[in-house]
Amino acid sequence: MRVVLMSGSSHPALGESIAEMLGVEPGRCVIDRFPDGEHHVEVVEEVRGCDVYLLQPLGPPVDPHLMELLLLVDACRRQGAARVTAVVPYLAYARQDRRETRAEPLGARLLADLIRASGVDRIVVVDLHSPAVEGCFSLPVEHLSAMPLLAENLRHTVTPDSVIVSPDLGAMKRAERYAALLKLPLAVVHKRRMSGSQVQAHNITGDVKGCAPILVDDMISTAGTIEAAVQALLEAGCAPLVTVVATHSLLVGPSLERLQRLPLRRLLTTDSVPRSEPLPIPLEVVSVAPLLARSIEMLRAGLPGH
Amino acid sequence: MRVVLMSGSSHPALGESIAEMLGVEPGRCVIDRFPDGEHHVEVVEEVRGCDVYLLQPLGPPVDPHLMELLLLVDACRRQGAARVTAVVPYLAYARQDRRETRAEPLGARLLADLIRASGVDRIVVVDLHSPAVEGCFSLPVEHLSAMPLLAENLRHTVTPDSVIVSPDLGAMKRAERYAALLKLPLAVVHKRRMSGSQVQAHNITGDVKGCAPILVDDMISTAGTIEAAVQALLEAGCAPLVTVVATHSLLVGPSLERLQRLPLRRLLTTDSVPRSEPLPIPLEVVSVAPLLARSIEMLRAGLPGH
Amino acid sequence: MRVVLMSGSSHPALGESIAEMLGVEPGRCVIDRFPDGEHHVEVVEEVRGCDVYLLQPLGPPVDPHLMELLLLVDACRRQGAARVTAVVPYLAYARQDRRETRAEPLGARLLADLIRASGVDRIVVVDLHSPAVEGCFSLPVEHLSAMPLLAENLRHTVTPDSVIVSPDLGAMKRAERYAALLKLPLAVVHKRRMSGSQVQAHNITGDVKGCAPILVDDMISTAGTIEAAVQALLEAGCAPLVTVVATHSLLVGPSLERLQRLPLRRLLTTDSVPRSEPLPIPLEVVSVAPLLARSIEMLRAGLPGH
Amino acid sequence: MRVVLMSGSSHPALGESIAEMLGVEPGRCVIDRFPDGEHHVEVVEEVRGCDVYLLQPLGPPVDPHLMELLLLVDACRRQGAARVTAVVPYLAYARQDRRETRAEPLGARLLADLIRASGVDRIVVVDLHSPAVEGCFSLPVEHLSAMPLLAENLRHTVTPDSVIVSPDLGAMKRAERYAALLKLPLAVVHKRRMSGSQVQAHNITGDVKGCAPILVDDMISTAGTIEAAVQALLEAGCAPLVTVVATHSLLVGPSLERLQRLPLRRLLTTDSVPRSEPLPIPLEVVSVAPLLARSIEMLRAGLPGH
Amino acid sequence: MRVVLMSGSSHPALGESIAEMLGVEPGRCVIDRFPDGEHHVEVVEEVRGCDVYLLQPLGPPVDPHLMELLLLVDACRRQGAARVTAVVPYLAYARQDRRETRAEPLGARLLADLIRASGVDRIVVVDLHSPAVEGCFSLPVEHLSAMPLLAENLRHTVTPDSVIVSPDLGAMKRAERYAALLKLPLAVVHKRRMSGSQVQAHNITGDVKGCAPILVDDMISTAGTIEAAVQALLEAGCAPLVTVVATHSLLVGPSLERLQRLPLRRLLTTDSVPRSEPLPIPLEVVSVAPLLARSIEMLRAGLPGH
Amino acid sequence: MRVVLMSGSSHPALGESIAEMLGVEPGRCVIDRFPDGEHHVEVVEEVRGCDVYLLQPLGPPVDPHLMELLLLVDACRRQGAARVTAVVPYLAYARQDRRETRAEPLGARLLADLIRASGVDRIVVVDLHSPAVEGCFSLPVEHLSAMPLLAENLRHTVTPDSVIVSPDLGAMKRAERYAALLKLPLAVVHKRRMSGSQVQAHNITGDVKGCAPILVDDMISTAGTIEAAVQALLEAGCAPLVTVVATHSLLVGPSLERLQRLPLRRLLTTDSVPRSEPLPIPLEVVSVAPLLARSIEMLRAGLPGH
Repeated sequence: MRVVLMSGSSHPALGESIAEMLGVEPGRCVIDRFPDGEHHVEVVEEVRGCDVYLLQPLGPPVDPHLMELLLLVDACRRQGAARVTAVVPYLAYARQDRRETRAEPLGARLLADLIRASGVDRIVVVDLHSPAVEGCFSLPVEHLSAMPLLAENLRHTVTPDSVIVSPDLGAMKRAERYAALLKLPLAVVHKRRMSGSQVQAHNITGDVKGCAPILVDDMISTAGTIEAAVQALLEAGCAPLVTVVATHSLLVGPSLERLQRLPLRRLLTTDSVPRSEPLPIPLEVVSVAPLLARSIEMLRAGLPGH
Repeated sequence: MRVVLMSGSSHPALGESIAEMLGVEPGRCVIDRFPDGEHHVEVVEEVRGCDVYLLQPLGPPVDPHLMELLLLVDACRRQGAARVTAVVPYLAYARQDRRETRAEPLGARLLADLIRASGVDRIVVVDLHSPAVEGCFSLPVEHLSAMPLLAENLRHTVTPDSVIVSPDLGAMKRAERYAALLKLPLAVVHKRRMSGSQVQAHNITGDVKGCAPILVDDMISTAGTIEAAVQALLEAGCAPLVTVVATHSLLVGPSLERLQRLPLRRLLTTDSVPRSEPLPIPLEVVSVAPLLARSIEMLRAGLPGH
Repeated sequence: MRVVLMSGSSHPALGESIAEMLGVEPGRCVIDRFPDGEHHVEVVEEVRGCDVYLLQPLGPPVDPHLMELLLLVDACRRQGAARVTAVVPYLAYARQDRRETRAEPLGARLLADLIRASGVDRIVVVDLHSPAVEGCFSLPVEHLSAMPLLAENLRHTVTPDSVIVSPDLGAMKRAERYAALLKLPLAVVHKRRMSGSQVQAHNITGDVKGCAPILVDDMISTAGTIEAAVQALLEAGCAPLVTVVATHSLLVGPSLERLQRLPLRRLLTTDSVPRSEPLPIPLEVVSVAPLLARSIEMLRAGLPGH
Repeated sequence: MRVVLMSGSSHPALGESIAEMLGVEPGRCVIDRFPDGEHHVEVVEEVRGCDVYLLQPLGPPVDPHLMELLLLVDACRRQGAARVTAVVPYLAYARQDRRETRAEPLGARLLADLIRASGVDRIVVVDLHSPAVEGCFSLPVEHLSAMPLLAENLRHTVTPDSVIVSPDLGAMKRAERYAALLKLPLAVVHKRRMSGSQVQAHNITGDVKGCAPILVDDMISTAGTIEAAVQALLEAGCAPLVTVVATHSLLVGPSLERLQRLPLRRLLTTDSVPRSEPLPIPLEVVSVAPLLARSIEMLRAGLPGH
Repeated sequence: MRVVLMSGSSHPALGESIAEMLGVEPGRCVIDRFPDGEHHVEVVEEVRGCDVYLLQPLGPPVDPHLMELLLLVDACRRQGAARVTAVVPYLAYARQDRRETRAEPLGARLLADLIRASGVDRIVVVDLHSPAVEGCFSLPVEHLSAMPLLAENLRHTVTPDSVIVSPDLGAMKRAERYAALLKLPLAVVHKRRMSGSQVQAHNITGDVKGCAPILVDDMISTAGTIEAAVQALLEAGCAPLVTVVATHSLLVGPSLERLQRLPLRRLLTTDSVPRSEPLPIPLEVVSVAPLLARSIEMLRAGLPGH
Repeated sequence: MRVVLMSGSSHPALGESIAEMLGVEPGRCVIDRFPDGEHHVEVVEEVRGCDVYLLQPLGPPVDPHLMELLLLVDACRRQGAARVTAVVPYLAYARQDRRETRAEPLGARLLADLIRASGVDRIVVVDLHSPAVEGCFSLPVEHLSAMPLLAENLRHTVTPDSVIVSPDLGAMKRAERYAALLKLPLAVVHKRRMSGSQVQAHNITGDVKGCAPILVDDMISTAGTIEAAVQALLEAGCAPLVTVVATHSLLVGPSLERLQRLPLRRLLTTDSVPRSEPLPIPLEVVSVAPLLARSIEMLRAGLPGH
């Protein structure tokens, strides 16, 4: 079965990298808009009977990227693709995977249902905000992790005083994985809301005094969590040379201002979402292309692995 | 069963009008965005066991309006609404109701499937681009028409030399309905592509010389069709006082410039999509609120009518 | 994967032609009726793990032909066919693809849903009455056209005074395609219901005086439209030698009487529905077998094309 | 919720009886055919928000009756009926509820799936060929029995020498029910295929010598089973005055000739399928209208009973 | 496509036999329980892209065996198995394939729906209690029979006075098949409830006096039916050397005591359900492993057969 | 619409309490087993047209309790219940809501899919292990909490030195809610795996020295987490008078031995799962009956609340 890898408009450069690794030409498609803003999509590539992989991370702006993906899926399916796999290195709405109040929707489940309704057979994702998001999907989810890649990249700058730091309790599991990969001690910053009336503050569990902290998280959105964690670390006596590692870097809202103010040693992330213009911060980017290419190879061959 | 009418952010003013006609308070909900652009939706109104109507025309920008609607539906359904009806006076992607080539998606069917996947029970629409779009929906479609309202509004400015004009062949059925409602003669502008090599031109069938044309269409998007039709009418000897009538006025792209250049006598439309800022053209707006309110009354009561 | 081509009782001769082109034996099955009229179907051919194509055009009598098709699909699916493709060169109920009033069903969508419910994976059709019918199907539709075949057949009898004529506005797109294929000028017959009270008449747009008209349509049912168009053409001064071309020829009701009365030069159609007995009219039949065989070849191979 | 009872063309007289019992006017609908044999259906009655009951026994010709039913359901559902119940006193394809060989379809399951695909919410049936047919339906089945009605009608002609006779092993359960209702002894005719090579004959278990047999079955189709059973009974010394009772009387094929030849005392059945013309046999018909009317009353009220 | 055969905990020995015949290693999986009784399942074998066969007969205890099967299916599907076939030589709840009263569930249909909901593509079963159970499944059912195997095994102990006996009317079809395979005469034991008031007794149709009966049934559960039939046969003058044959031997409740009391010559069954401890009865077991292995071979190859 | 509250065999006493609060008789049903272990279920209560609530917590043994629930749902649905709500105060498999490795199933999603496949319309649960489990359900989930009830019960034994303690990081959100309800300070016990090589120990964040700890969790299964947390608290200088609060008390495995060894002041839980025999520990039980009864009242009335 012929493999076709096609990119939506969300991250064509990543698509080209993957295609090159797979040794295929990127699948040809036209993606633009009608004057009223409706998407105009054409799968020019002949995909009848093919094993199609549609690359479209759902970074901002999420709604058009999603709709474009769904239209591409529909076009492939109606043209007769044998199998359609959505390759979505960054999945949106993953933080809406629970309803805190009865007033809310369950965004992650809705997203999963929409993706299914369009006719996708499988989905490939990278470092979901929470593994419980998989429960929203009835179709098979290939859940990859960029953490080994990122840890490998960190390894040469690790020093004896390095310590992995989780910026909040929710990121503990992830931090434990980095600590295990790099054989480093672990600390966690957590909000101190230790009595009902008391003002909230930050607390650190684990020895960080004099250490070189490596803050790890799944994503940097507004960088608010990172900023607060760094502040707490500095107050706790950390060395003012902080490394920050996150799989996904949306960098929205005041994130750039915040990150510029921090004493960053390294800021390491992946290209799960694209970055077009030059940034005022020294972002180091590890590509997820090899990770995704290897996954596609395995899915294609039905071979064991990863 | 208690009726709740709730508006997405697409057209709250229309929602308020309808609520007032129904004698209910608009359902309370919070609709804004997280910094990364994901929607934050909360159905503050208690809708458990209620008959909920969600008003959200899908005018531009279509993707966020659609996603907002789907999240509202999900929130209502999970909160336990007894029935959720989407009230979508302007339905997007209706012109993508057929695939001209194998490369294209079938946008209208995809849209219908997404709406269904979110858990909508029924949908109310106004003057679909083509009645065949209903075939895309498995759920019941209440297909209302604003044409009687618009025709009624035209009646007092109709003169003995008035003629209904269809701007192309696709709008003929609609034009025939106006002609019947107003007992006026009918003409049609159509593209003359009468031989394979010949340059395309416009042709008019029906007597229009010296007449006061009333151009009717379902929607004005870029106003390109209208502009071409008016030009053809003037060349054919029409009086330079043209009335234009359309249910939906998106007015995107160069539409305002085009309409400003035309010898318009009247420009009549509805508020199926909102219009916030003052326009440089004398648009007369008939509200579809009574039409929608009456439809909701009937759906609610299970009464015959419309 | 082994290909099996099997015919229902609707058009076995066409099935045999296709099978021969594919170089396979027609799949063996028993199709008859119990005394109470229920179908008795047996798929004698072993189809487990096979790629099955079921040929069954849905010409009259439509209900038994449909039910037979659905039973064949069920038998194949339960026996373990890997994939079942319905090959339906003539699709019934395609004209019921919209509801003109609230009282009507949406026949085309119902048909599509029944076909899906039986377990069909894909459908192959020829010259749908309207491309919008595809929106009724959630499964992939291979929409073939016999127009290139028919145009090719016409080519040698085309003369300098030939003109393609669309018998009504609804067939314009189709007529334009013939005009483009044969590089001929185009005219259209349309009903003149130019005022609400006025009696209906026929009008012709395009120069037809002294021309040899080639009337094109998707199907001839009762031949009423054709008869009216020919009459209008003759009144407009056409040469009394009319060519009529249509993909599907049901020839029901008074069609034969009507066609016999017309000054036909040629009457060209396909064998999308069968014709058993000799006809009192000189029908020339182009077979769609090569078209369908080629489509099956491509579907089978997952190869690009058509 | 307003109740609407509407009849397809299969048995309007029964519909009128039920409507009268329910104290409602029969729902108005138009049912005819286009010249090409496609059904033309219009639900003229306004059914929005109504509790609709569609009466359509699936006696011969089964395919058109089925398609008509499905189109009626679709029309009601799209018009906004709150609930659609199919009332099908005679269900077709019920004998195809198992596959004897791998070559066959599972007709009863297909039928159930088609009915569901059309949008029916519930179905009412009378004396299914086998209760296992209910397993084919995912929607709720109200399985009524006409046996108490028929037994009641028999009671006054029962004599001390009456014996209930099952014409084959498959009808034993049914015969036991009649025997219990009428407190009569029971016998069974069964095929004697007592060795692999031996010719098949009929055998009777139970004392029938000199008795007046009451043969009971669910349906009379070609009357072949009945004829063979009567022959065996006579050979066994029964009195030549046979009563035959069956819920459904299709009377197809050679049934009338066969029944005319039999020494019938009474031939008792119901009007689950219609009978238009006068018959050459003295068929006594008990109406199922009261049974169906009572069932509809209970379904409508959500009341216990039956 | 690689074949994986994996066993749940219900019958691993059978799984090993089949694997050996297929020439594959049994697929590795972990199956145990958490302290609260929830199953802990891990599909250690890599099954991505594989053709997976899950062997799990649903003998007692049925609920845990079922839940284990469904969890295995889910694990395989989410890991990316290309196709999952449930191999269930003994299907539970098959006797609940009809509702005798309105109070009951339709257990067989529920079971079928649960199996489908878990994501199974096909199911292989052996000697269903009734072939009508297939109507409960929408997915393809490979219905195998162990009867030829069992008959073959019987052949050498068949004597001139052997007679096949069906222990009740429901088992007649099965008994006829054995009689045909072995060319033996046939008798049937049936309950005599020949009048409404009369006490129930057993009756035998067919000549059994002095014969050596071979009682055949689909399953032995509590052995109540068998015990009653043997008693009736002895009373009818059969030789006190009874052979009992049944595909499935659950042997629950008082079955062992009952069977020990009977004058058994042979007691022949299959290993469709496992038997771990030594039994106080001389059960001869024919393995269904070759039958299942052959079926898997055919399903895998898409080859005709059986 | 009549309300019917029916209990499976899992917790009839709770069902009776709720029924009494609702002022209805418990719905009658028969629930036992056939000798082979298959459930025998009969919904004797007439539920046609009723609003049915089926109470069945899924405590151990989980598989039979689940199967019984699904059979009850099927019986109600087939009998014609208007709406079926599963009331499952303790939901099993909720801890299997994510796949830690590719080898595992997603138990919580499977459970949700099985419940849906049986025909449930809505589900009521109490204190889910994680709110993300709701994402597994497509049907509306009423997620109730017993925490306010439990906190209220604690209030009178709260002393100035009381402190809410979370036994691990996963229970923090829950502990915060108790702290807020009782206006108490908060501490958390967490595992110290602060370096890759280091042995794991327990750590406490928050001041607990000399305090009277109130350990809160969602459930007590084997009491291992509680035991470890108490040990850590004592080592940290807590007063040896520990209060333990948990919504669900399965008390499986070595739980009773562990709890007996602890210096318990109070052990507070609910009756979400039943407890039949006397326990060797002083368990105080707050009933969730009022909580469930109030929820049913609201669902029934479509009224706002909770």
